[in-house]
This record gives sequence, structure tokens and C-alpha cells, in this order.
Amino acid sequence: MKLKIGIAGYGNIGKGVEKAVSASSDMELAAVFTRRDPGKLRIEIPEAPVCALEEAENMKAEIDVMVLCGGSAKDLPEQGPKFAAMFNIVDSFDSHAKIPEYFSKMDKAAQNKTAIISAGWDPGLFSMIRMMAQAILPQGESYTFWGRGVSQGHSNAIREIEGVKGAVQYTVPIESAANEVRNGANPQLSARQKMKRECYVAADKNSDLKKIEGQIKNMPDYFADYDTTVNFITENELLKNHSKMPHGGFVLHSGKTGENNHLMEFSLKSDSNPEFTGSVLLAYARAAARMSKEGNFGAKTVFDVPLSYLSPKENGELVRELL
Amino acid sequence: MKLKIGIAGYGNIGKGVEKAVSASSDMELAAVFTRRDPGKLRIEIPEAPVCALEEAENMKAEIDVMVLCGGSAKDLPEQGPKFAAMFNIVDSFDSHAKIPEYFSKMDKAAQNKTAIISAGWDPGLFSMIRMMAQAILPQGESYTFWGRGVSQGHSNAIREIEGVKGAVQYTVPIESAANEVRNGANPQLSARQKMKRECYVAADKNSDLKKIEGQIKNMPDYFADYDTTVNFITENELLKNHSKMPHGGFVLHSGKTGENNHLMEFSLKSDSNPEFTGSVLLAYARAAARMSKEGNFGAKTVFDVPLSYLSPKENGELVRELL
Repeated sequence: MKLKIGIAGYGNIGKGVEKAVSASSDMELAAVFTRRDPGKLRIEIPEAPVCALEEAENMKAEIDVMVLCGGSAKDLPEQGPKFAAMFNIVDSFDSHAKIPEYFSKMDKAAQNKTAIISAGWDPGLFSMIRMMAQAILPQGESYTFWGRGVSQGHSNAIREIEGVKGAVQYTVPIESAANEVRNGANPQLSARQKMKRECYVAADKNSDLKKIEGQIKNMPDYFADYDTTVNFITENELLKNHSKMPHGGFVLHSGKTGENNHLMEFSLKSDSNPEFTGSVLLAYARAAARMSKEGNFGAKTVFDVPLSYLSPKENGELVRELL
Repeated sequence: MKLKIGIAGYGNIGKGVEKAVSASSDMELAAVFTRRDPGKLRIEIPEAPVCALEEAENMKAEIDVMVLCGGSAKDLPEQGPKFAAMFNIVDSFDSHAKIPEYFSKMDKAAQNKTAIISAGWDPGLFSMIRMMAQAILPQGESYTFWGRGVSQGHSNAIREIEGVKGAVQYTVPIESAANEVRNGANPQLSARQKMKRECYVAADKNSDLKKIEGQIKNMPDYFADYDTTVNFITENELLKNHSKMPHGGFVLHSGKTGENNHLMEFSLKSDSNPEFTGSVLLAYARAAARMSKEGNFGAKTVFDVPLSYLSPKENGELVRELL
């Protein structure tokens, strides 16, 4: 019996989940749910029905796990609890500061369902490495660097500036700072010392480029605390050279036992942030189904899930092949 | 209430576990068990009693988790099942091919106890990365490189050659092969292509160095399948420059979703293999105690343990600080 996966929200991450379903022989796509006109949405797996988001409540029996692919700012705070009351769910809620509040809402909603939240790569895999590393080497320091990759949030912030037709922002880790950590220096690093921001902007003809550059560089929260470079290019160049969505980063944990140093490092380099995130979500969908079968209901995070639950393989096989 | 830790076997790993106990505010050392004369063994934490290995059975009430620090070749196959019948245990059994057999013996023995086996860094952390990575990106390939570091097994094999007074062998990963993987080439790599072996040997005066070098390089299993260099040095140099026990390595998983490539990499660089291994074991001791309290008995591996069980922190704290 294949695991029946629902996808709620068919943006970049939803498409990534769909690709991951195709790559997983133990899964099948039960349906895609969209806020758009279902009749007009074309998906990659043509056998699967496309339904309106509101129809989901009539399809509880057809879906083992619903993967929520909406945004963390507006969609998930509203959709999450609603869906967690009806389905086992997985999401990649990534507003770090709001996770505890979201967790508690999801935990209340998921009375008879399992809801694994914030299961992407950060929050997600990177969180797991930070947690493990600190449990193993409590006398140490963890550092997270993001990039090189496209930040949608920062790109969108630039796009809202008057005179900007298009923009892509790359977060770039500062390797010299990372190397200080790798060399065991345990430095104190500000945001500016860890990452810089590289912007590619297509502006309207006749717009004041100096002014736009200043607005970007001084934007609080997004850019003011970082060294930022702004490159003006044409819309064509933007489309041609900057339409992929690569991302990644690395977690370093440098710790000591007595006089001896130890360094753990986990890194990700992904050509497609949404497809990688979708692949992580789908592995956790497998875990959500299994925890639900065991009656392990409520909100869960990557910290709560035994790793074997991510795999379609049986324990004996995992022990023989991978331990 | 602190977790009461017993250490069975006071070699390098046992000492590493002891150091890790000192670094963990939620743990205390209940006793060290040794095959040597307990009266003559000096340990780092002087408050803890040193006992003969056979006394362990009289101390069931004093110990929450026994960390088994004997060797995988001779000690653990015998001690493991005996101790797992009496105590929650953790060990770092690392004879890869024999793990399934050992697992099944430990599972039978641990009727009312929890026994987490093979919990070091490989098997252990590296296994977890391999497993997770393959569950997330099933269309991909995992590669494990070991080193740069001292292999005790290979060093011992050299020491048994006639005319050899001392020897240290370093396993050295071949970076050019690793870089092929990092670049997404998904190469087929033989053992020789992944790692080379660097030997430092102190020989008896008058011994035939050419002959010793040949015996090392042609030794089946240990050296014949690798490019091996042999450097003859004095016993003093051996002691001065090669008495530390660094180790490490890295796991690469290169996978695809459609046309897009993704690379995950986990690496460890440790100045002290036994102290790092001891630190991992102790984090898993915390997990063993908790699983045992939950009645989750039998043999377990790192694949079965929710990551939060490794940490002394509560779930809410982990979610707030590390997710």
C-alpha cells in the first residue's frame, strides 16, 4: 500500500514535493489543493486530481499525509491548525521567532493527528545538527552560515522599492569568518561578519539608480546590518542569469574535551532550494504517517522523530546497509 | 537527580567517557569497572569507586546506564549481552560486518533494559547522515571518506611485524576524489581511490628496512589494496610527533531531483578519537536512560533514537533555542 500524499499549495515548494513523490516508490500523489482555479492548474503528475483548497475536508479518507506548502508569513498560521485538525501534516514553517507560538497552536489542533512542523533544512536539518552537536560537545559553540543562495524574502523586499522592475538577492557566507571557526578560534561573529548580501536589480529607465541603491543598503533588518553590493542589470540578464533558486549553507560546531578540539560541520549546496525542501518534507511525511499509526499525536519537530522513520527501508536493512 | 553512569573498561574510550561525564552537569560517575587490579587504577574523578568487572552485578541499583568501553573484537561480543541483561547500556561496537549478529544477541539479552549499540561516529553519526541523506534524496549516491587520522587496527598490524618496535598508521582521504563527488560527478570509487595509508615505523637497529616495508605494503586487507607510504623514524620521533589519536572523515551525499543537483556533506575533525567517541556515547547514555524509563527495551541503534533524547534540555527549550 502506497502512502497517499496530498499537496496543499502548488507554488515552488509544492512542485518540489511533487517531484519528490515521483522519486519515491512507496508514495503516490493523491491530490493537489490550490487556491487558484483548479481547472486551470496544470501539474506534473497528470493522474492526480487538482482540487480547490476548501474541498480538502471532504477528502480525509483519501489522504494519509497532507504536505502544507504555503508561506510562513500568511498561509501557514491560518491553514496549519485547520489542516492539522483533519490530516496528518508536515510543513516547513520557518519564521524562527514564531515557531514556539505556532507549535503550541498546532499541538492543540492535532488532537488525533500527527503534525510535524518546521521540517525543511533550516529550520530542519541544520537544527538537528546544532542540537546533536551541542548535546555531544556541550563545551563548544555552534555557528550557522547561510548561502551562497537566493533569499526570497530579501529579493521581495527590493522589488517593493519604487522604480525596481525585478531583483534577486544572494546571501553570501564570508569564508574567512568560517575558517576562523574551523581553525578553533571560537570567535564572536556579528551578522555582518558572517554573511554579505549581493543584489542584482533591474530598474525602470530614467529611475535614480543612486537613490535605489541607497534605499536598499539602508533598509533596516534586511540590509542595513550587512555589507551589501548592488548591481544594476537588464531585465533580460536577470531572467537569463538569475532565475534559478540555489541555496545552502553550513553549520559548524567547534567544541573541546579538555585540551582537545573537535570540529563538526554539516553543509548543503542545493541547485534548487524548493526542490530540496520538498524532498525533506516528503521524508518527514513518511515519519508523520508512522507516528500517527502509533498514536503519537500532536505537534512534533525534527527533534522528536527517530531517523529510521524517514526511510522506506526496514530497520534490519538500515542496520545492514547503512550503520 | 543526576544520571548515574558506570564505565566498563578504562582504556582510551573509557577515559573519554569519564571526561565527558565531567563536562555534563546532569550526569555523575557512579563507578569505573576494570579487569585490572582496582586498587592500582587511578582515575580522573577521584570520588568515584573503582571496582572489579565482576562486582558490577552487585551494583545494579547504583547505575542508570553502563557505558561499555571494551574492544569490538574480543570484549564486547562477550561482555555486551552479559551487561545488557543487567543494565541499560551504550557501546560503540564497530565491526561493521558483525553488527547484525551482535544486534540480535543484544536484543535477546536486553529483556528489561535498553541497549544502544554502535553509537560512536562511524558507526554512529556518519551512519545517521548516510541514512537521512538517502531517505531525503533517494536518487543519489553516498560516499564515506575516513581520515586524516590514526587507525589503531592498522597501527597494531604493523607492530606485529618482526623487527618493528613501534608504528603509527594514518588513514588519509584523497581530496581529489572527494572533489569529484562534490562537483556532482557521482564517480565509482575503489578503496584505493578514496584513501591512502601513511605509516611511521620505528624498527630495530640492524633490521632489514626494505623487507619490513614490503611486508607492510603487501599485507592483505590492511594495506595491499591501498597506496601506502612507509617512513622509518626513531622511537623518540614516534613518541614525540605521533602519540596523539586524531581522527575524522566525511560523508558526502550527492543527489538529484530532476535536473537539479544537491550535495550534503558532514565532516568531523577530531584531535582525539577516543574523547570524541566517549562524548557521543555519553549523549546516547542519556537517551538509553530515557527510553528505558518509557519501557522501550531491547537493542537499539542511532536510527531508533529521537534526537531530543540526546540533550539534557527540555523540548520547549530546544525548539526555542535550536530549531
